[in-house]
Parts: sequence; C-alpha cells; structure tokens
Amino acid sequence: MGERRYTLTISCPDRSGIIAAVSGFVAQHGGWMVEASYHTDELSQRFFMRQEIRADSLPFDLNEFRARFALLAGEFGMDWQMSDSAQKKRVVILVSKQDHCLNDLLHRWRSGELDVDIPCVISNHEDLRGFVEWHGIPFHFVAMQDKVAAFEEIARLFERQRGDALVLARFMQIMPPYLCQRYAGRIINIHHSFLPSFAGAKPYHQAYQRGVKLIGATCHYVTEELDEGPIIEQDTVRIDHGDSVEDMVRYGRDIEKTVLARGLRCHIEDRVLVCGNKTIVFK
Amino acid sequence: MGERRYTLTISCPDRSGIIAAVSGFVAQHGGWMVEASYHTDELSQRFFMRQEIRADSLPFDLNEFRARFALLAGEFGMDWQMSDSAQKKRVVILVSKQDHCLNDLLHRWRSGELDVDIPCVISNHEDLRGFVEWHGIPFHFVAMQDKVAAFEEIARLFERQRGDALVLARFMQIMPPYLCQRYAGRIINIHHSFLPSFAGAKPYHQAYQRGVKLIGATCHYVTEELDEGPIIEQDTVRIDHGDSVEDMVRYGRDIEKTVLARGLRCHIEDRVLVCGNKTIVFK
Amino acid sequence: MGERRYTLTISCPDRSGIIAAVSGFVAQHGGWMVEASYHTDELSQRFFMRQEIRADSLPFDLNEFRARFALLAGEFGMDWQMSDSAQKKRVVILVSKQDHCLNDLLHRWRSGELDVDIPCVISNHEDLRGFVEWHGIPFHFVAMQDKVAAFEEIARLFERQRGDALVLARFMQIMPPYLCQRYAGRIINIHHSFLPSFAGAKPYHQAYQRGVKLIGATCHYVTEELDEGPIIEQDTVRIDHGDSVEDMVRYGRDIEKTVLARGLRCHIEDRVLVCGNKTIVFK
Amino acid sequence: MGERRYTLTISCPDRSGIIAAVSGFVAQHGGWMVEASYHTDELSQRFFMRQEIRADSLPFDLNEFRARFALLAGEFGMDWQMSDSAQKKRVVILVSKQDHCLNDLLHRWRSGELDVDIPCVISNHEDLRGFVEWHGIPFHFVAMQDKVAAFEEIARLFERQRGDALVLARFMQIMPPYLCQRYAGRIINIHHSFLPSFAGAKPYHQAYQRGVKLIGATCHYVTEELDEGPIIEQDTVRIDHGDSVEDMVRYGRDIEKTVLARGLRCHIEDRVLVCGNKTIVFK
Repeated sequence: MGERRYTLTISCPDRSGIIAAVSGFVAQHGGWMVEASYHTDELSQRFFMRQEIRADSLPFDLNEFRARFALLAGEFGMDWQMSDSAQKKRVVILVSKQDHCLNDLLHRWRSGELDVDIPCVISNHEDLRGFVEWHGIPFHFVAMQDKVAAFEEIARLFERQRGDALVLARFMQIMPPYLCQRYAGRIINIHHSFLPSFAGAKPYHQAYQRGVKLIGATCHYVTEELDEGPIIEQDTVRIDHGDSVEDMVRYGRDIEKTVLARGLRCHIEDRVLVCGNKTIVFK
Repeated sequence: MGERRYTLTISCPDRSGIIAAVSGFVAQHGGWMVEASYHTDELSQRFFMRQEIRADSLPFDLNEFRARFALLAGEFGMDWQMSDSAQKKRVVILVSKQDHCLNDLLHRWRSGELDVDIPCVISNHEDLRGFVEWHGIPFHFVAMQDKVAAFEEIARLFERQRGDALVLARFMQIMPPYLCQRYAGRIINIHHSFLPSFAGAKPYHQAYQRGVKLIGATCHYVTEELDEGPIIEQDTVRIDHGDSVEDMVRYGRDIEKTVLARGLRCHIEDRVLVCGNKTIVFK
Repeated sequence: MGERRYTLTISCPDRSGIIAAVSGFVAQHGGWMVEASYHTDELSQRFFMRQEIRADSLPFDLNEFRARFALLAGEFGMDWQMSDSAQKKRVVILVSKQDHCLNDLLHRWRSGELDVDIPCVISNHEDLRGFVEWHGIPFHFVAMQDKVAAFEEIARLFERQRGDALVLARFMQIMPPYLCQRYAGRIINIHHSFLPSFAGAKPYHQAYQRGVKLIGATCHYVTEELDEGPIIEQDTVRIDHGDSVEDMVRYGRDIEKTVLARGLRCHIEDRVLVCGNKTIVFK
Repeated sequence: MGERRYTLTISCPDRSGIIAAVSGFVAQHGGWMVEASYHTDELSQRFFMRQEIRADSLPFDLNEFRARFALLAGEFGMDWQMSDSAQKKRVVILVSKQDHCLNDLLHRWRSGELDVDIPCVISNHEDLRGFVEWHGIPFHFVAMQDKVAAFEEIARLFERQRGDALVLARFMQIMPPYLCQRYAGRIINIHHSFLPSFAGAKPYHQAYQRGVKLIGATCHYVTEELDEGPIIEQDTVRIDHGDSVEDMVRYGRDIEKTVLARGLRCHIEDRVLVCGNKTIVFK
C-alpha cells in the first residue's frame, strides 16, 4: 500500500510552539511530512497531533528517531507513539453466529484494502469455521459455558498472537472488566444502534418500539461500562413505519459492517486518539 | 396548489376486504383516487389507510360523502376523517427567541410552499414582533411569569383562531399536561436531538459530552411525557471532534428547521396517523 | 421467508375505478391483500400497481387466478404479471476480477437475506473460481478473445439455467445490443458513478478530474445505449480534496455493493416496473 | 464571533520543510496557531496550507506580519494571503425572483451566524425590495433589457462597495466572460443540480426526464464556461418515482440554500483554495 511511512501521534498540554517544535525537528533531519493534523480539546486544554512522515526521507531508522524525539517529547510533556507502515497491525476477530461483519472484514482483508494481519478468528460457535479456514486463517472455538475460562483463553490467544486490536464483530458476549482495562483502547465493538440510544440487548426491538425514523450503528472502544466507551464512528439509515424489526435488522447489517470497517481502518492507521471518554479521529 | 381533493384517512381492525370496500365505494360514485396508501400494524392488528380523491370526480359534496360513507365505516368499525384541500389548515406558531424555524416556516408560507393559514404567532418575548408583523401576521406576546395564566392565554388564542395545529418552533417551554391531552395529535414540537438520545435540556451539550459522531433533530407530537411523544420525522448530520457545542448548534439549526418543515407538511396533508406511541407517515 | 404470497404487477391506461376493480376481484374470492402500491405516470397517463396477496387466502391456485384475472385485465387493457413467492427467482451473476459486489451478493444469499437461486456465476477470469465453488455454486469461465462467441456462450448458459435476472456485478464488458434487447428488463448493471455523470470508462478518474464533492453508484437495467438504461437505485457518498482516485475507488466499492444489492432485491421482489426509460420502484 | 484571528493561506511548489518553516516563523514570534491544515495536490505537485493564528499572541500588527513573512514567502515561491477576522468580508448578493436562498442568507446574517457585511442586494426584479429593505440593506434594481449595461452597473455597484464576494443566489442570468475573469474566485453560484449532471437550463426537468433517484445542488465559482467552474460544495437528496418536477423543485430548494450557505461560509473564512479547476476546502 504505497511508500513506507512513519506515523507519529502525540497528546500533550496545549501551549504555543508545539507544531513548530515538532515540524522543526522533522525538517531539521530532512523529514518529509505527508500528512499533519491537529486538535485542541477545549475542556482538558490538551493538544493532539498526528503526522505521517516518509520513511525514506529520514537519515535514520525508527529506533533512532524514537531516541532523538524522546528529548523533545519530554520537554513538552508529551504522550506519544510512533508506528511504521511496514509493520502490519495484527487484528484478532471475535465472532458469534452472525457473520456479516466478519464476511465484510475478511473480504477487505483478502482484497488488500484492509492492510493488516489477521492471525486468528475466535468464536463461541463452530458455524463459521469453514468460511474462516477457507481464507487460510486459523479458527479457534471457545466454549462459553465457563465464561471465566473462556475469556482467559481469549486473552491467551490474543497475547500469543501479539494482537494490536481485538475486534468484536457482533460477538454478543460482554467482555469482563479486567480485560476491558488490560486492553483499553484496543478492543473495538460494533453496537447495532445509534448510541447512546438503545444500549444493551435487542436495540432494533427497542427502536421499533420507540418508533424512530432512522436506525444506526456505533463503533466504539470497549470499556467496563457496557456500550459507554469512546465512540469512533457512527452512521444512520432511514426507515419508515412499514419496516418490521426484521427489515431493520437487514438494513442495520449494512451500516454495522460499514461503520465497523471505517472505525477499524481509522484505528489501525493510528488516526484515533482517545481524550477522556471521547475520540479524536484525524481523517 | 393544484386541483381540489378530498383526503380520507381511516384506521380500523385488520381483516380482508377493506381496500375493496373503500375503493368500491369510491368507484361506485365515479370517484377518482389519485393517491392511496395502506399499512397494517402487526402488534395492534389494526389497518390504516389514506386516500386522495379528486373532488370534481364525485357527484356530491363533502357532507353528502360523509353521510354516505358513515354506513360503510360503521360496518368495519372505522375511525375516520375526511378533509378538503379547499379548506386550508390553520397553524398557530409558538416561538421564543431563536427564530430559525420561524423564519423557515414563514418563508415557506409566503412563497406558497406551505399551503396553510397562519392566524397568529405567539411568543414569550417581544424580539420577533417586527419580523412577524412584516408578514401581516398578528403577533401576541404572552408573559411567562405566571405559567398557568400564560398557557390559558395560549389555549384561548389557539381556540379563538380555530387552530388545527400548534407548532412549538423552538418554544423552550413545557406544555402543561392538560393542554397536551386536550390537543393530543395537534401539538407539534421540534426537539434538537435525535430522540430518544438527549431528551430534556441542552441536548447539544449532552451530545458534545458523549462524543457522538452525528447529531440530530426530531419532530414529534407533544404528550404529557416530555420528549416522549410519537415521532413524525427525524434526521441526522455528521459532526467530528473539531466541532464545538456552538458548531453543533449551528449545524443543528439546519436540520431542525428542515425536519420541522417536513413533519408539519405531512401533518397538514393528513399523512400522519398515530398508532399507540408511533406514527404511520404516508408519503 | 415468511408466508407464501402472490405478487400481481399491472400497468394500464389510467382511468377511474382500476383499484376498485382489482381489489374487488381479490376480495370477492376472499383474497387478503398485504401490500398494495399505486402510481400514475403523468406524461404517459399510464397507471401502475403492485399487490401482494396471501396465497392461502385464495380458494384456487395461481393458474386458476391467472385464468380468471385475464378477463378483468382485458377489460382495462392491462399489461400484467403474477409471481409466486414459493418460486424462487434465478439469478445468474457475471463478474470480472473485482469481487466486492460478488462477495456481497453471495453473503446475502448464503445468509438467506437474498432469497433466490444462483444457478451459476460466469466470469472472463479464473480468479474467483475458488470462492464461488466454495459456496457450491458452479463457476463458468468464458474467454473474451472472441466476444461474439463469448456472449453466445453467456446467453446459452443464462437460458439453460432459465435465469430471471442477469447481474453484471462489475463485469466490465459491454453487452451486445441483441442481448440487451432479448433480455430487456432482466439485465442489471452496477455503474460506479452517479449517472448521468461520468458514464463510460474510468468514472472515478473522471470524478477526480472534475473535482466533485460526492461520488456515487447507479444500479440500472442494461439497454443498447451504454449507461443510459432505466435507473433502479442510486446513492452517493461524500469525499473531499484529500481523497485520491484510489480512496474514491475504495469508498465507491461500499456504495456500489449496497446499491446493487438494494436494486436487485427490488427487482426480484417484482417491485420495479419500467415506464419508458424510467422505473417505478414500489418500496 | 470569538477572539481576533489572522488567517494565512498559502500555495507553493511542494518540497520538504514548508510546514516547519511557516510554523517556525510563527512560533519564533510567539504566535499561537489555533488551526492548521495542509494538502498536497499530486497532479500539480503543489502544496496548500491554511493557518489561523491568535492576533493577540503576536507582538506586531498585520502589516508588520506581512512585511516579515514576505521574505519567507519569496524563498518558497509562495502565493499567499493574510486576512484578519476583525475585518468583515463584504458580500454582495444578486437575486432574481426566487428568494429561498436570499431568505436563508439574510437570516443567517441577521442572527449573526454569517459574520459578514452585506452592503447591498441587486436584482433584475422589484419583488424582493421590501424584504431586503426591511433588513436595512440597500436594494438595487438593475433592468436586464440591455445586458451589457446591466452587468456594467452590477460591476460598478460591486466595486463601489468593495465587495469580496458576489453571490448569485438563484440569479438566473449568465455572467459575461469579462466579469468572470475580473472577479475570478470571487463570484459564487448555486446551481440546482448535482454537477456535472444537468448543467444549463431547467435541471429538475432534465433530472425528471432521466429518472434519477437523487437530485442535488452545487455551489461553485463562476468561470467563463457555464456551470463548469471549480466546485466548492455539493449535496444530494433522495427522491422517488412519485415525485413530480414540482416536488423536486421543492426538495431542491432545501439543499440549494444549505449548500450555498455552507459554500459561502467556507469562502468567507478563507477555507477554499483553488487549484486548477478544483478546490481544496479546509474544514
């Protein structure tokens, strides 16, 4: 997917001169910035930025960059991360029986659009084994009778695979708090409503009951509070009185998969920065 | 606005033969149906229909039509209404200081798009008197210090004007329960959120706080439960992390006025039928 | 997918009494109409209607229905068709190398959402054989060196399979006029622009060149005039100056597949009636 | 409308170090950047940027800034402009008889949302004089019998008012080439179609004829080629077979006014940079 790039994401207390310091640092080494985005959060008075730099424009490698940048970062009190487009992100997918999101993600992956490694798919049902294995991707069944053991197994698999993101592609199981904490900002869920409306179970039934004229889907980071984590992406689609719950489920699948794919793409491209319970998404 | 039409709206218990009976009745008198819409509500097993008939295709007037149709209606246990496009609906508008919805409605009215009479505008502030009176529409100031008296005055004005609809065009005051009941299905509000999210006060602040990626507006009938009445129309618009509450307010105005105008248009064309706490909107 | 239904679609010269005659005919035999939609085309003064009737509410079968209805149809000069939900439509898919639409359609098919038979997939490349055959669907390779022979082979396969629809799911080859005529109203294409803008080759490059702020996709019936056939469904998505042609191709895939799926669904449910070079789509 | 800001817009040949040089220049004088946006156009290999700087963070005024920045600008071969939020843009509006865009713009202006001066409104009809003058804005009637003289009069008024933008708010007259050239990048039109579809006259009739499923509106800079200038903003709205040309005109008005208002806002905030026949819109 094009030339090699380093992506630098930063958050720090707001003050003047941050952009100048960072872009000056890059320029002083001949670095060529190809994308740069900034945001100040008014409430927290924190500054957020993201830069993409051509790897071949720099005279040193990523480790050297990190070592040198650390000095500047210290001066501004920066939280920062640097990633390398040559190092693919590793995405582990959790799925139950509904496969529209899985089908969508695997297609994007095999067509090269979603430029990640998918080391495995994990499910509490055997239904999707054949489809996943057809892609040459290992499929792990994890029984949910003993939830504690099940989630330990999921965590073990995720860590053994050095996963960068754990995607709940309509997994329909609630992650235990200790995993939400351990993998904060790395677990991505797709909820089948326009949150905060219709959190929890059966959102399309809730929407039908309330008589809304649009339904939605929400991609968010998973936190201990169910369906309350930072929202990455959302969308809505128009319905009308003639649509049954089944129709809504059908329309909903189309936005669920699109919203999840867009949110995940932003995540793996380091475009999503978390600020309190909100996200900054640099597009 | 085109040829004269009668609009017949019906709700009754569902069974076979309803369409045949009604369309047969119309046809037997030579009536020409120019629009016909149907819906069965699965939960209540009630059938809803709406027809437009060319007035000049019938050999009798509206009263005669009503008298004859009553027999058929009785047989099927119908709730029904008949309106005449030659009889303009009378819309009373309540407004506070924010005037984007008022400005939008009055423009649609003076351009002929909104084919109603607006016998008066009522407000708890004097700010908009000049603009309203420029249109030749009477403006009534009602002080809100004594809320009981204020709403009695509003009800008096509405009834004296034989209002068909009372539109809260960002009125910012809560209607008392007795008026919600008395004018059930006739009071239309625009709420500046995508309900059921962010009901109550300061919805844009709530939306900002939650970090949603779309904001919305909802046009609904007012009931005793605040922001809980049957939804007529909704829409959403995309925002991002860079948008302040003020930006959201600004984007929101554009969907508020459009959603209110669409909802009101459906209402005055007898396209909205209420079914429990939901609406059927025949477009 | 639910109870068995007959779907009756009609077009005829407009006059009063059509609805009464048809619904009277259905009611007289105890038939229960579950959906009914009407439209008058002002230009041609033709009337269009579509009804769904519960099969079990009628005392006779489809053949008997047809025989009896023919009398009424003759009286009104109707073009009409009757289909049976128990008889699945047969959809043959043509594809080249790009597989996002194919992947989407096959997922909808295997999940039961798209309730059709897919007797085969035809392609001018071998690339997608494995994916298609994994579904248990026969895959036919047709070489395009000799276009005349290739399209004869495609026609032969389509007819042998008694196809109801021939779907060009990004087939990238132009159908010869004689097939456009022979299968008029049965060949469905997805074009990757918001027609009539950017017909022909490389629409995303054309869109990039022109600097539009939205791109689109169009599902239409194929006629002899390239990209000029009756439009069934369209949609658009927002882009901005930062999006390259490659980004547009990527966004475009998401609307192409959704627009094709929606258009095809309407087609197989007999919701699309052609009127000149336009469609009536009863939703 | 908030604190005073300077807005610096730049275009120059792309190379590394531009951001560093500009942000370094600003930082060196203690300047506080509150917004910064960048774009590289791949075709022309030109770099575009826009910065907002807090006026009170700089130790000198705008003239001094300009003088000092000119040196840097010369080094990089920059085309650049600097504006001051304390200096309101002057917008002259041209209108014919249709007033939905005018009504919308004047409301945004009188509510303070559109933070500009409107020194006058010019029209070839007297119809809107009363409405414009109610706002305290001078209204000039210009007869169109002699088009040459009429446009000379328009140019004279625009220049006397030192207009920054000339807005054709459904003016329905074609600007002569010499004015398109003289005011390149300053004349803004709203066209009632999704360009490049349906350029020229009666776009809704063209859309109806073609049977499209969405209609649109386009805000663009006026050039000598009719409806071919750089596009600033577009949007679409869904229609269906039941919508007449009149319905399309009605839906269209709502997107025309919104699209024009959004495009104009971007223009007056110096967010629109022209690159060949395309625009970069920094939001």
